[in-house]
Formats: sequence, C-alpha cells, structure tokens
Amino acid sequence: MSTTDEPQPTSERRVRPSGRDAKRAARAARAAASVPYITRALPRYEVLNEEGLTLIEGNADTILEEIGLIFRDDPEALEIWKAAGADLDGERVRFPRGLCRSIVQRTAPREFIQHARNPARSVRIGGDATVFAPAYGSPFIHNLDEGRRYARIEDFRNFVKLAYMANSLHHSGGTICEPVDLPVNKRHLDMVYSHVKYSDKAFMGSVTHPERAADSVEMAKIAFGGEALDPATGRPRTTLINLINVNSPLTYDATMLGALKVYARANQATIVTPFILSGAMSPVTVAGTAAQTLAEALAGLAFAQLVSPGAPVVCGSFASSLSMQSGAPTFGTPEPALVLYIMAALARRLGVPFRSGGSLCASKIPDAQAAFESAQTLLPTCLAGVNFVLHVAGWLEGGLAMGYEKFMMDTDQAGMMHTLLAGVDLSPNGQALDAIRQVGPGAHFLGCDHTQANFESAFYRSPLADNNSYEQWLEGGSLDMAQRANALWKKQLAEYVAPPLDPAIDEALLDFINRRKAAAPDSNV
Amino acid sequence: MSTTDEPQPTSERRVRPSGRDAKRAARAARAAASVPYITRALPRYEVLNEEGLTLIEGNADTILEEIGLIFRDDPEALEIWKAAGADLDGERVRFPRGLCRSIVQRTAPREFIQHARNPARSVRIGGDATVFAPAYGSPFIHNLDEGRRYARIEDFRNFVKLAYMANSLHHSGGTICEPVDLPVNKRHLDMVYSHVKYSDKAFMGSVTHPERAADSVEMAKIAFGGEALDPATGRPRTTLINLINVNSPLTYDATMLGALKVYARANQATIVTPFILSGAMSPVTVAGTAAQTLAEALAGLAFAQLVSPGAPVVCGSFASSLSMQSGAPTFGTPEPALVLYIMAALARRLGVPFRSGGSLCASKIPDAQAAFESAQTLLPTCLAGVNFVLHVAGWLEGGLAMGYEKFMMDTDQAGMMHTLLAGVDLSPNGQALDAIRQVGPGAHFLGCDHTQANFESAFYRSPLADNNSYEQWLEGGSLDMAQRANALWKKQLAEYVAPPLDPAIDEALLDFINRRKAAAPDSNV
Repeated sequence: MSTTDEPQPTSERRVRPSGRDAKRAARAARAAASVPYITRALPRYEVLNEEGLTLIEGNADTILEEIGLIFRDDPEALEIWKAAGADLDGERVRFPRGLCRSIVQRTAPREFIQHARNPARSVRIGGDATVFAPAYGSPFIHNLDEGRRYARIEDFRNFVKLAYMANSLHHSGGTICEPVDLPVNKRHLDMVYSHVKYSDKAFMGSVTHPERAADSVEMAKIAFGGEALDPATGRPRTTLINLINVNSPLTYDATMLGALKVYARANQATIVTPFILSGAMSPVTVAGTAAQTLAEALAGLAFAQLVSPGAPVVCGSFASSLSMQSGAPTFGTPEPALVLYIMAALARRLGVPFRSGGSLCASKIPDAQAAFESAQTLLPTCLAGVNFVLHVAGWLEGGLAMGYEKFMMDTDQAGMMHTLLAGVDLSPNGQALDAIRQVGPGAHFLGCDHTQANFESAFYRSPLADNNSYEQWLEGGSLDMAQRANALWKKQLAEYVAPPLDPAIDEALLDFINRRKAAAPDSNV
Repeated sequence: MSTTDEPQPTSERRVRPSGRDAKRAARAARAAASVPYITRALPRYEVLNEEGLTLIEGNADTILEEIGLIFRDDPEALEIWKAAGADLDGERVRFPRGLCRSIVQRTAPREFIQHARNPARSVRIGGDATVFAPAYGSPFIHNLDEGRRYARIEDFRNFVKLAYMANSLHHSGGTICEPVDLPVNKRHLDMVYSHVKYSDKAFMGSVTHPERAADSVEMAKIAFGGEALDPATGRPRTTLINLINVNSPLTYDATMLGALKVYARANQATIVTPFILSGAMSPVTVAGTAAQTLAEALAGLAFAQLVSPGAPVVCGSFASSLSMQSGAPTFGTPEPALVLYIMAALARRLGVPFRSGGSLCASKIPDAQAAFESAQTLLPTCLAGVNFVLHVAGWLEGGLAMGYEKFMMDTDQAGMMHTLLAGVDLSPNGQALDAIRQVGPGAHFLGCDHTQANFESAFYRSPLADNNSYEQWLEGGSLDMAQRANALWKKQLAEYVAPPLDPAIDEALLDFINRRKAAAPDSNV
C-alpha cells in the first residue's frame, strides 16, 4: 500500500481476505451472543482525585446539615427521620453531618441480583457489572414512516420485543414508552404484563402511585411463581427495580416516597435519582451540581434503608444542562459528562451501585445530532463505570419520543461497548508476536495463522454501519444509517418469537389484571 | 416540575430565563473566542497499568531486534544506521534492544513550538497541549448540494478559510483535500500558498517528494520573512510540521525517508506515523498492533534524530480495523480506541509529543453513522491526551472525501472538547454552595445571583444542535443537523475576511511559485 498521503485510494485499501463466507459470519455473530450483563475489565476513568471528591462530599454534608430537604405530604417520613436523629422544622429535614452516609453504609448492599424470570438472564447490579436497559417514559414514538405521534400499547409491546431480541440489552426496562391509548390508572398493568409476556429479561415496576407499585409487586410474585427467599441473602427475592426521581432541588414528594416505601418493604430495588437540569434545578456549575445531587441521593438512599434496612438501593444521577439561550434542556455536552464521572466515583466511595447516563440527545430525529449527543453520553457512561444504565436505546428529543430507528442504532453502539469494556487482551495470543514474526516487513496479515485463528472474534461488527465503497453504497440505494435501521427493526419484529411462559402463570396474570381493572373506573390521573 | 416519570412534558420543562437577548448571546460567543491551543486540565485516561505498558515496550524491542525493518532504496539511510550500531542484512535493519529508544531520548525535544505567521497563533506541541487540525489528504469533497466529486483548488481554499474562521481549530493543516485540477508535481505550491494567503494559522508542508518538501521549506522562509533562529532553542525556527507515514508492516520507503531528511535537516517537525489497518498491516489484536506501531515509530523517530539531532519529532499512530467481512476499513470501533489510549501512554513514556485520532468515520455522508464513529474517535483522542490531532474536521468515507457539512459539525464537537478538557472548576464559585443556600428546596436557580453572574460562560453552546421544542423545530423546516451545517458553511464563507499579509511577501511567494512552475513540465506523478 502506498505511502505518505494519509487516505489510500479505495482500490488499494479494500482487501478481501479469502476463505470466508456468509456461514462463517453467522457463526461469528452467534459467538458474540448475549451475556446476561457486562463484567468490565477496562479501568474506570476518574476526573477528580481524592481531595476533589472529599471536597464534594463535604459540600453535600453541608447542604444536608444547613439547608436540608423537604419531605412533602408524608407525616410517616417525618416520623422516621425524627427517630433517626434528624432535625425537623415543619416538613424541612436537616441532617447532622455524616448521618445519611452512616445509615446507608450500615445496611445497604454493595451489589445485588435482580432476578429475571429466565434465571440465565438475572442481572447483577453493582461492582464491576454494567446492565443496559432501554429508554424510559416517552409519551411519543418516532419512526421514519410515521414521524412523531403519541405512543400506544402496541408500540410498548414492539419495544419489549426489540429489547428482548437485542443481545446488547440486558434488561427489559420499565415505561419504555407511555401507552397513552390506555387509562393512566390502569396502563401499568398492561406494561408489566407485556414485560412478562413478551420477554424473559428483568424489568421495572410502576412508580406513579403507591397502589400501582403494589400491583407491580403482586404481578411479579405471580410471574415468578410465588414469593420466595433469595438463597444468597435470605431475604425476599428482588424481581423489580424501580425509578424514584427526586423533585430537585432538595424535595421529595408523597408520590415517590409512597412508591419507594412499597418497594423497599417488599425488598424490591429502588433507584434514587436526582433529575437535574443544571441552571434550573441546580447551580450552573459541575461541582455545585454534583454536591447537590449527592446530598439529595444520600437523603433518599438513607430513607430507604430506614424504611427497610438492607433493601437494595441504587444511587442515581440524571444530569443535563439548560440552554442559557432558550431554556431548553441540552444533551451530549461536556458538563453533564463531568457530573457523571464524579457521581460514579462518589457512589463507589459510598458503597452502593450507581445509575446514570444512556444514549441521551435533544434531536427530534435519528440524525447526526442524535448520534453525536448519544455517543457523548454513552461512552462516558461506560468509562465512568455506571452499573445500571437506563435510556441506553431509543431516546430522542430529550426523552419525549422513543425512536424505532434510534433504538436499533443505540443497540448497535451498546454492542460496541461490550467489546470496549472487555479491555485489552495481554495474553500471548493478544500480544501476537508470532504473527509479526511470521509475516515480517512488507507483507500482509490477512492469511497468516494468527489472523485465521482469531478471525471470528476479531473486531466489533456493526449491523448498521456501511463500510462499503462509495460505488457499492450507491448501488445499494445511497441509504443513510437511519434508513438501514428502519429495515432492521421491521425485520426483527417480523422474526420475533416469544419466550415460553407457563400458561397457568399467564392465566393468573390476566386474571389479576382483569380484577384490578374492574375494581375502579378508568381515570387519566 | 413533576415527579417520578423521567421525561417531563415540554411545557413544564422549557423554562425561559429573563433578561437576556441576542446581544448578550453575541457577547458570550465572543467570550468563548479562540485560544491558540488547548492546555488540558482534565486527567488523562489510562487503559493499561505500568506492567502492561512495559510488556508492550518489551515486545516492540523484540520486534526491532529479531525482525527489524526494511529501509528501502535509500543507501544513505543504511549508512546512517550502520554508523549508529544497527545490524544490516541488505535493506533489512535490526536494532539492539533499547538502541532506538536511547537515540530518541538523547536528543528529541519533549515539546516544541510550531510558529505561525501570526505569532499569537503559534502552537505548542507536546506536554499538556492539544492542537486541533483539519482532515488531510482526501481526493474528493462532499456537500449536500453537489454530493461527492473530485476536489479542486477552490475547495482547498474554502477549507483553509473555514479552518481559519473556526475558533475550535488551532491549525490550518496540510493537504486538506487534493486539488486534483492541478498537476501532481506542482499542486503543493498552490496548497502552501493558500495556507499562507488565506490563513494566519500554522500549517504543514508537502511530503510526496523530497523536492516538494524543499519547496515547502523555501516558501515557509519567504512567508516568515526569512530564516531565523528560535530564541528559545537557538535552533532554526520550526514553521512546518509534516506527515511521514510508515509503509506498515515494518517498511520505510525512499519517498518518505527523503522528505523526512529534508525537514529534519531544516529543523522542521516530522510526525512519524505507522498507518495501520489491523488485520492487514498488523495483527488483529490491540496489544499486537500497539507493539508493532511502537517498533515502527521508534525506528523512524530515531532515524530523524540521527539525521538531525534535536529536530522536533512527533510519535504518530493511525490505527483502524479491517472489516473481516468485506476487507474494508472501519472507524469508530472500540479496538482502535484502545490502541490510541495505549500509544498515547507509550509516547509519554518515551518523552515525545503524540499524534493520533481525529473525527474518523467510514460513512459516505454526514449522517448518524458519521457522527457516532467520529465521536467514538474524537472523545478517546481527547481523553488519551493526544497532542497533535490531524483529521479533527471534515473527514468522511475513510478519508476519501472532505465534507463541507461534516467540517462544520466536527468543529462544533471540537469546540465542545475545549470545555471538556478544561476539567472541573473546584473554586468557591465552581462549588456554588452559596447558590444552593440562596435558592433552597423547591425553588429554581434561573434568577439567582450565581446563575446571573455565570450566565455568559455557563455550558458549551453548539451552533448546530437544535434544542428547541418539536413544534419550533417543525416551524423551522424540520431540518436535520447536516442541513443546518449546510447553511452555516455558506454563511461563513460569505463572511470570510482574509488576515493581513505583507504585499512584499505575497509577491515574493508568487514569484517563487511562478519560477518553480516554469522549471518543469506539468506531471501527474
């Protein structure tokens, strides 16, 4: 190949190794088949040293001590805090320095197993494990055929199916999109049922009302064949993980406290997440946002441990910045990435699993903006060592829309992260000195023994990237990545086969749902 | 703002701070104005520990000792190596363990200044400095209006102008695109002239023939008002940096050795870069590719120091993977990123500046694939601590096309990297405790003193991201990022104003070019 000018002409650069065909590629694809979750070998990236992290922790303690938090409309919560030694001033709760941290560290598990109904798909949350779940909570969907429209239960089922088929996703998620064709007070029943029926991966419960949380717990019991103790812990098996967002700044309301209490008392996992747009719900600075996030999370995590000592909890952080021009949230910018790195380190020091990140973007469509912003979120997520990653696939428009094409692109990127997090192979095979000896100067490595031996596992393979020549790409219709993704999600849905489900369990779930639906009129609050 | 479900409805999320207008935004944009180069405050990311890096270094020494390199068609090079203590076997040169490293470490500068004709724009290369330059070497251009076509000198001038206007680019680059409407043996004269005439940033010389390298040196002398010593070093002022690619595996040819010698003897900088598609020019593994890259770079860097002890050199690495299905190069995948992190650490241990990365992609168009792949290259580039980054802006199609829209998107991302590399502000203002005290629970930070005081510098601001509501975006024509970039490059070119150039220098340059063009017939080799 030629010499000094960097890009090489297509004809010289494109070299076609011999002896491989479609069957071989299919074998390779199977070899890269699903793992229940990622166990990282890659070191974590740290942006602050010990001194910097200690400073942020001290500031969080100052916020808890001086400013405190409001626990709104929940007298029981105030009683619990009073008994734990906090200072009460109406609904304002102030915490002696170190109180929340010591409560969390006394009983919260460093990591835990969330069971899936297929035991091979149970996920470990915490430590070196990383679990990828789809996006959560969009009222709209977007695809190239229809544009943007309100989501329906059919979309919800489609995304459960696509997540089930995606090797790079380990979790079925929760409110993947809002089925707005169903009443607000009953749609959680159909959502939980869809996760059980159309997937065998672990999933999330409802948090929009304590009663809906209780329904989720009941349905999980039915789906898992009754209540059972986890032999590893002697505690009720954890089968749900649930998203409890803080009303930042510094406020917990009765809805989320209610859902948190239901789940914690059932030994189900809660992700306590300050949801912060810096500039509106926190200061415009990274260090200020991190301190406030830690203070808010500490109060919620400690509260969960007071309610149910030993219940699995996850420290969460959702950080975005506000556009100072328009007031709109922005994504994929550097500041939230810095907050993420810091919060991941702080959660490790606290000793609990961490949730953050995903494939976030503000773009309305699966274009270059969506991709830039998503990559600028997902890569920090992985380098920082996030344990539970919501919003890995599908997120568009600040979370207002769940994109079909975006979902496929994001699962592709998530697959790539599996290879990255496996780190560098320093075995003799990884060092490959014999290959370099065999080939020597001026020859090529395509046919050498080492390349042949490692052919099937070498390099991450994207199902959506077009690496062909310009001429081949033209012949293929000059498609962009979104158009290729459009064909792929349709193909996947057409090929979907449901995992087996015991008919007795299915019947019991439907019976429960029917009884609950009959018990109250439809309502949209 | 509402509670437990993650995405918030647009109307609630969009908050419009008061007291700000277009003038204020314009002031803010000016405040974020250009720096001559980035001085990083963010820690570097390391994927291997001391033991792992030592292993790779040992393997590089084994390659140099046992296998050696070919120095092709350059008897002088062989004489130089013989005198330095290498073992010769025809054109094959083998190196006693540690020889190349000791030669480099004896005389190569750890960092150096490349002077720009505007002294305020001179760049520091090495240490904590990062310099961003445009893409290099494409025979084609791409834009939304014309699609893909061969590049012309007019395109070259356009990109020099766009790079001059881009605050996030510190360097004018070299062969930004190949002006194929000019003869191969003369186009370097027009390219160097364009860099001087249409920009005042530092630039690169020609490497396609030793004579063209000599022309570049002569033109730089004229442009800089004659030869001069750098007072900091007492050596001839370094005004050119030049890309010397290795013919991997393990081969240097006469063309690049010739150019390297011309530049090194004039104390101009050379970037010695193994250009490697793993699987073809190196083993399919990360550790094998890193060891071979280091061996190749060490031999070239040491050769430059033997030719001209103390001449500025940069250790380069261009690593991509081969698609094992099609034989095509791929970009933005995890393996080249891992090679990049390792090579950056190895160059630091060697004690020379490092060049790698950029905004690489295989996509033919500025779509989501282009963005994903570019982000997955540029972010590792910045986290790893690359000092000189070629290909930051414009790269499409594996470097075969220079994209106008892609150029604008990439400069936006490069701007974002400035904010990231500034790291976390831990000053009292950065900690923002008083802001949290002032606002307290349940209120918002939009109007607080701290937000007002930090308003203009808070958060990276993208000129291309659309963060508006869906409805606003529809009203604006439903443009994707590439379409917005299309409008932006046209606006920029329309507003371009050339930097001042002494008419006597301009005349002398044109006179030199005319004489050189008259001295030989046009040729396309």
